[in-house]
Amino acid sequence: MKIQAMNVTPVAIADAPLRNSVGVHEPYVNRVIVELVGEDGKSGFGEASYSTKLYEDLLALREGIVGADGLNTNRLYEIVTAHISPPDTPVVDAQADPALKQFDLTPRRINSALPRTFSPIEVAALDLGGQALGLPVAEMLGGRVRDAAPFSAYLFYKYAGGGGEGDDLREDVYGEALTPGQIVQQAKDFIDRYGFKSIKLKAGVFKPMVEADAILALRDAFGPDMPLRIDPNAAWTVDTSIAVGEKLNGTLEYFEDPTPGIDGMSAVRKGLLAKGIDLPNATNMCVTSFDDIPESNAKDAVQVILGDHHYWGGLRAVVELGRICSTYHLGLSMHSNSHLGVSLMAMTHLAAATPGLTYDADTHYPWLHPSDDIVQGGPIRFVDGAVPVPTTPGLGIEIDRDALARGKERFDRIPYRDRDDTTYMRRMYDPTYEKLLPRW
Amino acid sequence: MKIQAMNVTPVAIADAPLRNSVGVHEPYVNRVIVELVGEDGKSGFGEASYSTKLYEDLLALREGIVGADGLNTNRLYEIVTAHISPPDTPVVDAQADPALKQFDLTPRRINSALPRTFSPIEVAALDLGGQALGLPVAEMLGGRVRDAAPFSAYLFYKYAGGGGEGDDLREDVYGEALTPGQIVQQAKDFIDRYGFKSIKLKAGVFKPMVEADAILALRDAFGPDMPLRIDPNAAWTVDTSIAVGEKLNGTLEYFEDPTPGIDGMSAVRKGLLAKGIDLPNATNMCVTSFDDIPESNAKDAVQVILGDHHYWGGLRAVVELGRICSTYHLGLSMHSNSHLGVSLMAMTHLAAATPGLTYDADTHYPWLHPSDDIVQGGPIRFVDGAVPVPTTPGLGIEIDRDALARGKERFDRIPYRDRDDTTYMRRMYDPTYEKLLPRW
Repeated sequence: MKIQAMNVTPVAIADAPLRNSVGVHEPYVNRVIVELVGEDGKSGFGEASYSTKLYEDLLALREGIVGADGLNTNRLYEIVTAHISPPDTPVVDAQADPALKQFDLTPRRINSALPRTFSPIEVAALDLGGQALGLPVAEMLGGRVRDAAPFSAYLFYKYAGGGGEGDDLREDVYGEALTPGQIVQQAKDFIDRYGFKSIKLKAGVFKPMVEADAILALRDAFGPDMPLRIDPNAAWTVDTSIAVGEKLNGTLEYFEDPTPGIDGMSAVRKGLLAKGIDLPNATNMCVTSFDDIPESNAKDAVQVILGDHHYWGGLRAVVELGRICSTYHLGLSMHSNSHLGVSLMAMTHLAAATPGLTYDADTHYPWLHPSDDIVQGGPIRFVDGAVPVPTTPGLGIEIDRDALARGKERFDRIPYRDRDDTTYMRRMYDPTYEKLLPRW
Repeated sequence: MKIQAMNVTPVAIADAPLRNSVGVHEPYVNRVIVELVGEDGKSGFGEASYSTKLYEDLLALREGIVGADGLNTNRLYEIVTAHISPPDTPVVDAQADPALKQFDLTPRRINSALPRTFSPIEVAALDLGGQALGLPVAEMLGGRVRDAAPFSAYLFYKYAGGGGEGDDLREDVYGEALTPGQIVQQAKDFIDRYGFKSIKLKAGVFKPMVEADAILALRDAFGPDMPLRIDPNAAWTVDTSIAVGEKLNGTLEYFEDPTPGIDGMSAVRKGLLAKGIDLPNATNMCVTSFDDIPESNAKDAVQVILGDHHYWGGLRAVVELGRICSTYHLGLSMHSNSHLGVSLMAMTHLAAATPGLTYDADTHYPWLHPSDDIVQGGPIRFVDGAVPVPTTPGLGIEIDRDALARGKERFDRIPYRDRDDTTYMRRMYDPTYEKLLPRW
């Protein structure tokens, strides 16, 4: 299955003013769509978080990828490695990599340009290869062990507004959510629409105990059997994290990135255990690559890794991460950013073929306005909080070329490029806002 | 690709009187051949070390495997798990498992019946699936990163004889090898015939410094650039291991299982490092499953893992082991037992698709008399010490049904079942021989 062409298309999608520990989502978020065209004229698609560097690297990689065997993803990885990370590229040099400054929640230690750049190419190759072979991507990864991929309700504190700007505003489906009562209402709306069976609150926005109260309000509203998670994106000190963990003792499924860094997470874990509280730490911030794992394990910093095929180097890499997690008795969940249906379906096949995925995955997909997706047939359906795993070849989706073109036109029209939630927060909501991690 | 039939055939192959730390190879060694037949009437094959328990488990599994989807190896694993290792099966209970007593070099800690039983089924499923899809197995594992799988010359101390018994004797191609000079001659014969570019000596037979002298004789004969390894199968104490490591300082590529157990290997590593000798420990004895890895890593016991798809749970499991090795900066090599061409070709595809395989793999294949193999077209060819990776679908071999039937007849005729090198050593060569690990 020789790759005949590679198209790299940046697209902008409207994004609602969702809050987090470094600011607020801008009115648009950019994604990059990679299309690989095979000898048979069929196309496979992958999706990545946009950054200027990633986009430029993908453009530069077209020459090397075209002509390669799309069924040999190991070889595609070598091609990407030769371009992005030739021998002697320092592993720990995250600040030298502009792609890492995107949504710069905490400085990552590890240069992740290689896995990030490879990921959309691998997904597109698997989609293409699956179509050529008549196999769903889940089967190319070893085979589905579940027929639907369960996701959790991903709640955000949020200002009024549905995303977009100027004449291009989206309907604000869920409304403002700045109080515990509004967060509970958001959860109810999500569960009514999607049937989610677990809830995650993105925190790090208000004072820690106020956010803990939101979790307790969710507990009251949904009863003792609803799994709950809180993720302040490293907004808290070790002491604050321990205090919140104590307040929420018995209430949380896991504690996601309460504080920055492996040492901080390790201290939170030790502090809570010393109080008899066995609350697993989860992360997508301090363990974001294979190179982070040995130190984290040695320090018992993290008990649940939020894998993300966009950051860890594709779908096969996350299957392998699953084996590491089971070997080290870690849980595995899944992280997301604002994304389109291509990524949702990649995550769905991955979840289906990863036996060790022990938690419902994150997804921002409900926040995507249906008119912005590029998948044919309208938004991808959830059933009881889960996305049915397609049984058709490849990812099992068709791309709406008109919607893709509209996304590209939008990208060309807007001023936003690399994501910067802090500057937008300052400009629109609070001129005095400073990025500060930990803040409390 | 629904599995229509599963055939399980034990076969006996002649085995030369090769020495090791617990005795000598019996005149025959038994293997089990698993055949999965697909809807299209094609067959896929896998191979395992025979044990009575493994054979019986495979027979019992036929009912569950037939009807399953051969392309979904994750689901096949669930089927095998339900039979072999239902919930609450203790992980550390190796002595309760008769299959583990086979070639009982050291008591394994981990019950490996599940991965051992799954392995031949997985390989057969990949062979079958590859044929259905028109894909070589290497491509089903992510794609080849090398076009030939490099193996090392696997030398043995050996009595005269070529294997077989009674009227069924095989030619003794390589002759007796009990002295350093004979070992050097065996190496020369191997390299003349196969072109190997590295050499491993199975030791644990004579006094340690005598075996070290054999390594030095190999060094003299083949010069400073030939990678050399010694493997006494845990025959030495920690102190002896350190003394041999010191004597062979600068001569070995790695030090395979000098002493029993993770703690022993860790002590050898520390002892040599304290003398300024950075000689990596390798193992196929103290880290034989994923469950062994955390303790070994914590104690820095092993720097090179000898993966073996027969023991670790199939080809995909060893690809995943490769990711663990690169994550923990461990080397990856490959272990073998006496085997047929099915296993050789499975190892070849695996080596092709495992980027992190950092050493030439072991193989006993040169010790197999060509008349005993079950692969059509005579013994599989080596070129410059490596087996070219087939580009034809599946494993890329055809089974000689007559040879398979002869192997089964041989199995039915001989008295040998579960391997027992110690009893045979006592019976034929040394009535006073005792199994003793460590011995020196």
